[in-house]
Amino acid sequence: MTKSLFPFAALLALAAPAQAQDEAAPPSPGELVAQAPAAEWTTIAPQDLLVMTLASAPDGTAREVVIQLMPAPFSQGWVGNIRTLARAGWYDGITVNRVQDNYVVQWGDPNYDNPEADGAAKPLPEGLKVMGEAEYTVPSFVPPASSIKRELQGAATMSGLIAAGVNIDALMAEPEPTQTSEARRALADRYSRFAAFTQGWPIGGRDEEFWPVHCYGMVGVGRGMSPDTGSGAELYTVIGHAPRHLDRNIALVGRVVEGMEHLSSLPRGSGALGFYTTKEADKRTPILSVRLASDLPEAERPAFEFLSTEGETFARYAEARANRRDPFFIHPAGGADICNIPVPVRRVAD
Amino acid sequence: MTKSLFPFAALLALAAPAQAQDEAAPPSPGELVAQAPAAEWTTIAPQDLLVMTLASAPDGTAREVVIQLMPAPFSQGWVGNIRTLARAGWYDGITVNRVQDNYVVQWGDPNYDNPEADGAAKPLPEGLKVMGEAEYTVPSFVPPASSIKRELQGAATMSGLIAAGVNIDALMAEPEPTQTSEARRALADRYSRFAAFTQGWPIGGRDEEFWPVHCYGMVGVGRGMSPDTGSGAELYTVIGHAPRHLDRNIALVGRVVEGMEHLSSLPRGSGALGFYTTKEADKRTPILSVRLASDLPEAERPAFEFLSTEGETFARYAEARANRRDPFFIHPAGGADICNIPVPVRRVAD
Repeated sequence: MTKSLFPFAALLALAAPAQAQDEAAPPSPGELVAQAPAAEWTTIAPQDLLVMTLASAPDGTAREVVIQLMPAPFSQGWVGNIRTLARAGWYDGITVNRVQDNYVVQWGDPNYDNPEADGAAKPLPEGLKVMGEAEYTVPSFVPPASSIKRELQGAATMSGLIAAGVNIDALMAEPEPTQTSEARRALADRYSRFAAFTQGWPIGGRDEEFWPVHCYGMVGVGRGMSPDTGSGAELYTVIGHAPRHLDRNIALVGRVVEGMEHLSSLPRGSGALGFYTTKEADKRTPILSVRLASDLPEAERPAFEFLSTEGETFARYAEARANRRDPFFIHPAGGADICNIPVPVRRVAD
Repeated sequence: MTKSLFPFAALLALAAPAQAQDEAAPPSPGELVAQAPAAEWTTIAPQDLLVMTLASAPDGTAREVVIQLMPAPFSQGWVGNIRTLARAGWYDGITVNRVQDNYVVQWGDPNYDNPEADGAAKPLPEGLKVMGEAEYTVPSFVPPASSIKRELQGAATMSGLIAAGVNIDALMAEPEPTQTSEARRALADRYSRFAAFTQGWPIGGRDEEFWPVHCYGMVGVGRGMSPDTGSGAELYTVIGHAPRHLDRNIALVGRVVEGMEHLSSLPRGSGALGFYTTKEADKRTPILSVRLASDLPEAERPAFEFLSTEGETFARYAEARANRRDPFFIHPAGGADICNIPVPVRRVAD
């Protein structure tokens, strides 16, 4: 074979290689990210990283999943509970109990509230907060001082919009001379008045209410029927198309930043809602330990950083995701769903 | 354990059980579908069903995937090629070569255009059509006679809109007395002028151009660089958040209607774009055979039906997906992404 590439490899590129194949070709989203200046990358604090070690795969592959916890002002009560549970070693020995295709992977105590349990539920540690439904959203927040004010773009960031004094309601309701229908379409969202990025996270909102949104890889808190909001002892992550109808109905506490494939490729459960049935209990993947990176010896701490959503590169990256002009594409879309603009996160080399 | 349910089981229900748990509770989307009259289910013709048999899983589980091919007027040239390839037995013995997390699973000839191939590429059968890029979209189509005219709803169907004479441009551009901002938001789509359902499929469009959209489980045709549009010998399916930027850039030819979990849970490839590297060639899942259901002996033919997107139940189902009122939910979203309203498809019992 003389050709040097899989032709299809070029075609479905989520992130193209860092080196441009053609000097004249517009950069792909991945190329833009690779060229971002160091100052636009934000280090994730070790107390915001959760290292979850699963039992090795059947073929012996080690499986580690790293989760970034959400920053203030979002979901901090549940995030605090998760730190308490991790420090108590409570998560050690629980299992993945549910894998529902195109929906979620969920882990927790397999004996909790399970009529077919073969043992007693594990007692929770003391000191967990009971959170209310009102805390699924925050009434307002001040954009970080680092926000760059910018004009409305094809893919706008929320803090940019707020900082620029944009009246979201007016924008959505009526065209103004400077607000084209293309710009309004780019902001449209079926689940919230608008959806955009701030502080490295995808956020939905309207006038005085803001909330994190359920994109692929986001991590949330299992709960029972309302007004129960869950403690943080049972967690799930999204493994399919964004289930945005869960926004404001469950607490989101973070996202998987490495090792997602160890969860998303697990065998699906054959019980209702993807739970593993008693007969297939051997499919439950054991979780050996969950630790905050800040509680690990310094030599073992993983380090990660995300591309600032307030920087110039993120704006260009989001625009390029919305309008693919790299050589494979024929028709740029003219917009992108907020969950189709994943915030770039990368491991920092030791 | 005295409780009779996993509390979290109630919580992330994509499809609730058919029997209502509480007589007073509004029905869930799944309950509405279960109550649909038989007349609203449409049988899928056997020549539109492709049965793909994979090698058994490492634990011995049989793996069969059923794909529904798209009806006219969409992508019929490629669909015809796929029937030709299946009838020639060409797909038998190819492999799954790429599994990229939150993106696609792709299958084809592992030796095609592969610089590291250990054998020659498989010759294609005669009679395949060469399709042009213009055929990614269709200029117009007439809604089926069975369309039910209906007023604009939270989740509208395209044929309903067209039949009702709605001016999409006007709707998106300016509010009229009867068109609330909620209704406009419900129709908003970042990738097309609007997105809705017709003949059982999710379709994007604008004035005189319509195209199928890349939702979870949709099947498309791998291609090289433009103007190549692919023959149908290399196919992929979406296993993550809808990559709508591929709309109008690749031909969509169908969707997986059964056995999706056999593809979505495959181990991810560690090469660029999720391709399996030469070192992990043993991870390539063999495809034993691909047959049109119409070419199988009658006793072996699977039968499937889909819920008509022009019927009353689908409208209620879509509205319920957009506004979850079953007991678990606190805040109905007020809208739903087109890819978060999967068209119900079910196997017909023998």
